[in-house]
Amino acid sequence: MADFAARIAQVRQEMEQRGIALLFLPDSSNREYVAGIHRDIPNPTEDNRPGDWVAGFYLGLTGDPAILEPRMGSDRMERQIADMPWAGDLRVLGEPDDYSDRLAQVVRELHDGRGAIAVGERAWGKTVIDLMRAAPDAEIVNAHDFLAPMRMVKDEEERDIMRRNARLTDEVYEAILPRMALGMSEQEIAWVIDQEISRRGGEFVSFHTGIRIGGGDVQRRGSIHDHLTERTLERGTTLAFDFGMLKDGYCSDFGRTVFIGEPGDEHRAVYDLVIAAQSAAIVAMRDGQITAAGLDRVARSMIADAGYGDQFIHRLGHSIGMDVHEPPFLLEGDETTLVTGMCFTIEPSVFMSDGSFVRVEDVVMVTPNGGENFNHTDHALRVLDL
Amino acid sequence: MADFAARIAQVRQEMEQRGIALLFLPDSSNREYVAGIHRDIPNPTEDNRPGDWVAGFYLGLTGDPAILEPRMGSDRMERQIADMPWAGDLRVLGEPDDYSDRLAQVVRELHDGRGAIAVGERAWGKTVIDLMRAAPDAEIVNAHDFLAPMRMVKDEEERDIMRRNARLTDEVYEAILPRMALGMSEQEIAWVIDQEISRRGGEFVSFHTGIRIGGGDVQRRGSIHDHLTERTLERGTTLAFDFGMLKDGYCSDFGRTVFIGEPGDEHRAVYDLVIAAQSAAIVAMRDGQITAAGLDRVARSMIADAGYGDQFIHRLGHSIGMDVHEPPFLLEGDETTLVTGMCFTIEPSVFMSDGSFVRVEDVVMVTPNGGENFNHTDHALRVLDL
Repeated sequence: MADFAARIAQVRQEMEQRGIALLFLPDSSNREYVAGIHRDIPNPTEDNRPGDWVAGFYLGLTGDPAILEPRMGSDRMERQIADMPWAGDLRVLGEPDDYSDRLAQVVRELHDGRGAIAVGERAWGKTVIDLMRAAPDAEIVNAHDFLAPMRMVKDEEERDIMRRNARLTDEVYEAILPRMALGMSEQEIAWVIDQEISRRGGEFVSFHTGIRIGGGDVQRRGSIHDHLTERTLERGTTLAFDFGMLKDGYCSDFGRTVFIGEPGDEHRAVYDLVIAAQSAAIVAMRDGQITAAGLDRVARSMIADAGYGDQFIHRLGHSIGMDVHEPPFLLEGDETTLVTGMCFTIEPSVFMSDGSFVRVEDVVMVTPNGGENFNHTDHALRVLDL
Repeated sequence: MADFAARIAQVRQEMEQRGIALLFLPDSSNREYVAGIHRDIPNPTEDNRPGDWVAGFYLGLTGDPAILEPRMGSDRMERQIADMPWAGDLRVLGEPDDYSDRLAQVVRELHDGRGAIAVGERAWGKTVIDLMRAAPDAEIVNAHDFLAPMRMVKDEEERDIMRRNARLTDEVYEAILPRMALGMSEQEIAWVIDQEISRRGGEFVSFHTGIRIGGGDVQRRGSIHDHLTERTLERGTTLAFDFGMLKDGYCSDFGRTVFIGEPGDEHRAVYDLVIAAQSAAIVAMRDGQITAAGLDRVARSMIADAGYGDQFIHRLGHSIGMDVHEPPFLLEGDETTLVTGMCFTIEPSVFMSDGSFVRVEDVVMVTPNGGENFNHTDHALRVLDL
């Protein structure tokens, strides 16, 4: 387990330097990063527990932090933080209760009345309104401005979790390929993947599993993350996978494209191009030697030189860690210099004119000698003879 | 399709009455309610599209609304609003772009510089900070304060969708019962339910499917929504279901408890008690005749009189519509008077001392003559002879 007492001390240092007297983090990856409190998987159509909007972690510059938690779920929180002395003082909300007043009370205790209040970037508007009322003279600032940079470089423990999650994701891929069959729909394929993720201990998917059947007689447009369709695997189609798991607080993210029956010459050429563009980017991931935008250009220029520049329509990748998409982002305009311990997806692609989506995606860490690929699945063109 | 132009006019009336000059709604059920723009299913570990925090629907008191949308996904938005003239002017964010400046530009166009700015209650803190910078003199208020009351009473079209969703959920229940078998785990049972929901056109679950195996030798504590476990169905256990689907913008929510093998006398008595408490509450759901807290008391007093008051540990239910949990809530302290067209879950329960969780849950609408139950699954005690 990470040294959360040290992390909280580091956060307080950042707060002092920025004139921040109080930090509020709702249930989120930022709270999990700072205090080790495992986040809940959000409910799909919102979830309302009495007092939910004031629930979260409140950290002042000194003294114990406070946790406000609705009664529904407070027993789980109590169990979780029993061995976490740094997490602070648990205060359970009643039903009914004056929730805004409970928040104001914490602000009175922990805030000096002058310094700024930093909030998680996805703290609810309703909560921010209450914080402003409780401390009318305090400026509200975005805590992610200093938390995101802290999270960019993964320490040894984080790297080990991410390597393990990448290998488990490789295993999911090997497990599902033999289960592909003609006539399966995108939706059915996604079910198979999600179940294998669960079997390997994934607490949840990192993101909704993306499946895209294209090519052949299937003329499909749009992104892999459009809603899954009832399109089915047929001879002559291409099948693009994009999936990952959340386990022990960290995400994986993985992609491959396979061909159902022998691909044509252009498909082979595009496949080789995408793999070569990924390889070139991975080689260039050397500590201190390139920026996020520069790495995007490495892969993009190769694809553009081959005449497919307009068909590589998204960024080369994104940092990944506790969230599946974290800054920095590998795209024009992000001038962050890459350093050892930053982990990125490297995922060049070409949308072909027949609707085939050819992409490869691995999670790769910057090192002094170029990228370390956390995924071990090979990059050979794979034909499924269904 | 609802008359969204009329809804927007009604929203503007509410805004004028409250001195609000600009409304900002991110992708959410509130945006879907006001403008008919279908919400996305949120990604489990956050999702970052360039400029995501300024994305949303901006409505001034006059003129066309504006929609800011990241380029990734903008083609889907464009297709969706093609036939929705009321939805406004789509502005696609570039990569890179000065996203905060794009927001400030919309504020300059639509806000009069004086009135308040209302934000969806779950608008991100980061967005609220940008809005405050763009209009330093504007008060920030919670749009949900006037949107939630608008959403409480469902119109005829909404009721029809909710009735249909309830019946589909009944069908899911009938489809999964024959698939129960000794040795199945909570997790495996949830998969079966989620697949049947998908087969019946559910776009997603309303909330993470809750399964609870208790009783017998299985000593389980905690809520049905604790993480699913590997506990398995065995003779002598009780099996509690809690699930729902999101379809056409509205949620269902349904619960039953079945017994694996013949239940004992106390289990039968508790089952009958829970059903009777639900029936009494449904009868009392008459237009203008009772409050949310009063309805909770109807069921709670029956359970308390039978000696199980301490084992009915949650509210009697919640309003349901586009979100699975909406105000009003059926619990002490909520003095909203119930009127025709309000829809609630009615879900009394008893946590038994052997870990059995006995609950029944239906979606029921207030009418002049008492509740109309949207679910048609019967309430007879059901024994699965596995």
